[in-house]
Amino acid sequence: MNKIITIGREFGSGGRELGRRLARELGYDYYDKEILTAIAQHTSLSEEYVREVVESRPRQLFPITVGRSFMYLDTQPIQQAGEVFHAQQEIIREMAGRSSCVIVGRCADYILREQKPFRIFVYADMASRIARCRARAEAGEAMTDKEYRQHITKMDKARASYYSFYTDMKWGDKLNYELCVNTTNQDIPTMAAVLAKLFQ
Amino acid sequence: MNKIITIGREFGSGGRELGRRLARELGYDYYDKEILTAIAQHTSLSEEYVREVVESRPRQLFPITVGRSFMYLDTQPIQQAGEVFHAQQEIIREMAGRSSCVIVGRCADYILREQKPFRIFVYADMASRIARCRARAEAGEAMTDKEYRQHITKMDKARASYYSFYTDMKWGDKLNYELCVNTTNQDIPTMAAVLAKLFQ
Repeated sequence: MNKIITIGREFGSGGRELGRRLARELGYDYYDKEILTAIAQHTSLSEEYVREVVESRPRQLFPITVGRSFMYLDTQPIQQAGEVFHAQQEIIREMAGRSSCVIVGRCADYILREQKPFRIFVYADMASRIARCRARAEAGEAMTDKEYRQHITKMDKARASYYSFYTDMKWGDKLNYELCVNTTNQDIPTMAAVLAKLFQ
Repeated sequence: MNKIITIGREFGSGGRELGRRLARELGYDYYDKEILTAIAQHTSLSEEYVREVVESRPRQLFPITVGRSFMYLDTQPIQQAGEVFHAQQEIIREMAGRSSCVIVGRCADYILREQKPFRIFVYADMASRIARCRARAEAGEAMTDKEYRQHITKMDKARASYYSFYTDMKWGDKLNYELCVNTTNQDIPTMAAVLAKLFQ
């Protein structure tokens, strides 16, 4: 039976790198951006559009009254977001059925809940996340600590919102994961090698 | 250099058993009730008294005004609690300096913070904790689910209060631990054997 590891992660915690390295250590497949590409092909939406939609919660739409009729404004974005999520579900299930794998983000923990994946949440303190973001910034793109803090908080909020919208569960709540891993002051390659032992 | 693993745990999560088995797997010393005994010898307080005090936060004392004088009521319990905690600190440091060990509870994560222990927090969902409490209850001592829930909540509250009183940190907050481990529907001996690999 395929082993499935899902990884949720705070922005800047190094969770994506940890997932990729863990997959490599274990010889598992790794899915992340690849999922986006596959979704785009699946739904005939552009990859760029999918990338934009897939991590943002669809806007709520409220009916407005015009005369005696209800009207729903701008329904296209929410329909497309639903379409993307639906396709994403199918693709994640297909990938999980194909081989042992590590899947980062995308509510994969929830989508695959019946297969009982091993669910990891990766987190770190703010100082460590800022340092990680700064270290991977392109030349000339570094921001101030305050800007990083705002960006990190915003990205986490978007992830939490996306996750709770589709799963009705609280993102980052310990009870939704088998293991929560703190990357503060840790070396990700070393951590990946150590964590891999849990699955060997 | 000695390896130190500290374990904080929700009541009924099996954290104590996990710690004991982890120590056995690794060939480390294990400290728990032994600490109490040592403290009792150290402070010349009875072991029974220490057991009572060590997990309960000292009552806050408020000055009351009698005429123009302040009076502090009943200072003996808080003095003794302070004495026990102080002795406990010394003993935990002594044990950590002596050999690699697993220490369950007692704010050992905080007391040994300068030695950078590997800090684990063990938790589980309520149903799983109730089942675990029931399974280990003596014949005739089993309670209803509601009674277990109340007891578990009360014990957790006492632990949280004790921890925050002495450490000024939030008990169970992911950021205070390297690893948080969910024991819901898990077999503790198996988990101990798997977790031991992280340290081998």
